[in-house]
Amino acid sequence: MSDAPASSPSPPIAAETRMVRAVFPGDTNHYHTLFGGSAMAWMDQAAFICATRWCRTKVVTVHTGEIDFQQPVPEGTIVELVARVVQTGTSSMQVRTEMFIEPMDQYERILACTGTFTLVALGADDAPAQVPALRASDSPEGHAVADEPPTTGARR
Amino acid sequence: MSDAPASSPSPPIAAETRMVRAVFPGDTNHYHTLFGGSAMAWMDQAAFICATRWCRTKVVTVHTGEIDFQQPVPEGTIVELVARVVQTGTSSMQVRTEMFIEPMDQYERILACTGTFTLVALGADDAPAQVPALRASDSPEGHAVADEPPTTGARR
Amino acid sequence: MSDAPASSPSPPIAAETRMVRAVFPGDTNHYHTLFGGSAMAWMDQAAFICATRWCRTKVVTVHTGEIDFQQPVPEGTIVELVARVVQTGTSSMQVRTEMFIEPMDQYERILACTGTFTLVALGADDAPAQVPALRASDSPEGHAVADEPPTTGARR
Amino acid sequence: MSDAPASSPSPPIAAETRMVRAVFPGDTNHYHTLFGGSAMAWMDQAAFICATRWCRTKVVTVHTGEIDFQQPVPEGTIVELVARVVQTGTSSMQVRTEMFIEPMDQYERILACTGTFTLVALGADDAPAQVPALRASDSPEGHAVADEPPTTGARR
Amino acid sequence: MSDAPASSPSPPIAAETRMVRAVFPGDTNHYHTLFGGSAMAWMDQAAFICATRWCRTKVVTVHTGEIDFQQPVPEGTIVELVARVVQTGTSSMQVRTEMFIEPMDQYERILACTGTFTLVALGADDAPAQVPALRASDSPEGHAVADEPPTTGARR
Amino acid sequence: MSDAPASSPSPPIAAETRMVRAVFPGDTNHYHTLFGGSAMAWMDQAAFICATRWCRTKVVTVHTGEIDFQQPVPEGTIVELVARVVQTGTSSMQVRTEMFIEPMDQYERILACTGTFTLVALGADDAPAQVPALRASDSPEGHAVADEPPTTGARR
Repeated sequence: MSDAPASSPSPPIAAETRMVRAVFPGDTNHYHTLFGGSAMAWMDQAAFICATRWCRTKVVTVHTGEIDFQQPVPEGTIVELVARVVQTGTSSMQVRTEMFIEPMDQYERILACTGTFTLVALGADDAPAQVPALRASDSPEGHAVADEPPTTGARR
Repeated sequence: MSDAPASSPSPPIAAETRMVRAVFPGDTNHYHTLFGGSAMAWMDQAAFICATRWCRTKVVTVHTGEIDFQQPVPEGTIVELVARVVQTGTSSMQVRTEMFIEPMDQYERILACTGTFTLVALGADDAPAQVPALRASDSPEGHAVADEPPTTGARR
Repeated sequence: MSDAPASSPSPPIAAETRMVRAVFPGDTNHYHTLFGGSAMAWMDQAAFICATRWCRTKVVTVHTGEIDFQQPVPEGTIVELVARVVQTGTSSMQVRTEMFIEPMDQYERILACTGTFTLVALGADDAPAQVPALRASDSPEGHAVADEPPTTGARR
Repeated sequence: MSDAPASSPSPPIAAETRMVRAVFPGDTNHYHTLFGGSAMAWMDQAAFICATRWCRTKVVTVHTGEIDFQQPVPEGTIVELVARVVQTGTSSMQVRTEMFIEPMDQYERILACTGTFTLVALGADDAPAQVPALRASDSPEGHAVADEPPTTGARR
Repeated sequence: MSDAPASSPSPPIAAETRMVRAVFPGDTNHYHTLFGGSAMAWMDQAAFICATRWCRTKVVTVHTGEIDFQQPVPEGTIVELVARVVQTGTSSMQVRTEMFIEPMDQYERILACTGTFTLVALGADDAPAQVPALRASDSPEGHAVADEPPTTGARR
Repeated sequence: MSDAPASSPSPPIAAETRMVRAVFPGDTNHYHTLFGGSAMAWMDQAAFICATRWCRTKVVTVHTGEIDFQQPVPEGTIVELVARVVQTGTSSMQVRTEMFIEPMDQYERILACTGTFTLVALGADDAPAQVPALRASDSPEGHAVADEPPTTGARR
């Protein structure tokens, strides 16, 4: 197993990854609501970027958990995806992505759905790589801070 | 709750929905493999079409089950998604979508992943609509045949 | 001229290639019907995959025959493209793609148009490659079965 | 049958419709050449715009003629599509689209393929509409000039 | 001129709009760097969403200022767009969008370019609408807080 | 600094680059008008092709000037982008792109907006390359003709 980068400062941007999108006609089904597959793709992309920022090496999605879609997202809605690392293994990261919807003409904000994505970090020759650990004392819902990455081992 | 169409023959095309796709550069991440979110979107689209053909009314995805992604799908691969109704409720349908990959220069075919999607049929005013029942005696893996749809009730 | 793979079983998936698509707003012109160019692109993609499965080497489209577009395909329609090899030459394949439309709320199915595509197989250095022959006794409309591929010659 | 607009000057832009495109990775197949279906879609779009400019009413493509694809169009090529009305009927227009390719680092320009598209003009209630006639004395390869549109009849 | 919503809490999400994107092959030119036009489109989309969240009515972009593109953004880069309202007029908002790039395997973060977008709020019948004022005492670079929206006037 | 090609005829196609597009639902925001970012992307693409044809080497956009968007461009409009080189430096080119809109059912043509793009030519190792000079005697609004390219120096 290869290691994460030997010398790297704590990543202040690893706490939360935010991705807004506007639902335009090109993203909808013929009912003019956001196509379910598009929502899943946006959630996965947010998780992918979040995990990449966390471990700073190649990552791949190996598992997605169950997702409930409680409401349709009509054309003309602003969608915000917020992704956070909620758990880490030796080379895996569990990322939770929440999808909020904001009708364009209202101030209220609604949690539309949540998905959990498991990603694995890959180093040299696509062998699993070690990832910075999420400190157990951090509330997964708060500001997660990564441990200092290991200093031993050559970077791939 | 509104009913499915009053007079309709058994739908011979409701057994299986097949959707081939070729993985071109426009579908890949920067590792030149099929982006996970694209795979999810294709699986959901196959399920959506399968469920629509089954009940012939508006459908929405309300839940996706867990999905394991066992292997990367490189650029230049043919992908085939096969979706089948495996269970029905009063107004809900459970659709299983399997994603097979065929490297373009080989005859072997590999099951890359499976997803289960729950869709609900909606009729007039988006109220839940009754769907043709999957006969319990049918093997979900074989040729599912829909019951005759109910004859009572006006179509929306 | 290079040969097709030396050892390969008969390809059971070479008979028919099926590709369903749903017509969403992103695929339409401003009349909200499927843009003609999108229909042509989908038909060519189905032919491309069908021919690739047949000969299992690189293929290129060299010719498309005439196509009549008898009816508009409105948003909200399910489209199914069915492609079959109908004739083979030494290194060429003629593929017929039929495009059926199914209005989402009806069980009837209509043949919207047909196109014939000629593709050539390319092997090492993009030289023409030999393709499995379509047996003359097979009805082109039925289950075409490829001859056993030649056993001589190195695979590229 | 409904008429074309009653009062309209000769359309100087009806002679030729030019559409350049650059072939980027998003347009290619996995051989990194322009996907045949994309070429067809671009040619049809150029024809569609050309015909619309000619008759200034809704048009639909009803027929495409044979197309030979003589050469692959690699990533990094500039493509120019030139469309001209070459023949008119009462309500139909035949448009020829030529596709030229210019390798980005060369001054030479090659005609890659030609397609002929037949489009019909539709007026009120989608009934066929009369189109300006292409004058027989004009060389179809030169500057075609439309006859003055008919002055009788109300515009839809 | 129509007013903004009569009763609305201060919008905590109006301070900053963040939009991450990953540069995949589908977004690049044939040099495999982010196509300039894609960068501009992403910056405008971030500004559009930021302005919409600010005034909660329809907005249109009327002007973009000069943009310097100091560096290419290669495939495999994470891009983050951060948009803030920096100035308000009666019905106009000036939004500054910064585009940061993070090479995927590094912790450093670089400001690639900045753009300024002027958007106008439209209310009933597309007449200009009043927008919440940015308080002059706020540093435009810090946490901008909107004034309480006017309480008079019916919402369109 | 590397030179432009040693032997090359005057490029007759360098005067004007024309790019028509039709505004379909896939290009619009949820107000069904052309999304501002799409307009910018199209203008940049026209400038990119124009500059590439001028100097026949790799080009990159380094600066865009101010752009006023005077009117919305609704779905169903034909858009034509016309790009011309208006000024040249040693290795830079200034390209003006005008965007005209033609409502599909009218003969009138309106200049919707203008943008100025500065592009730099790059040769071997991405070092700045010399570009053909725009002759000062040419009206930038008319038929610009490039000077003969320098004959000294090896082509990259």
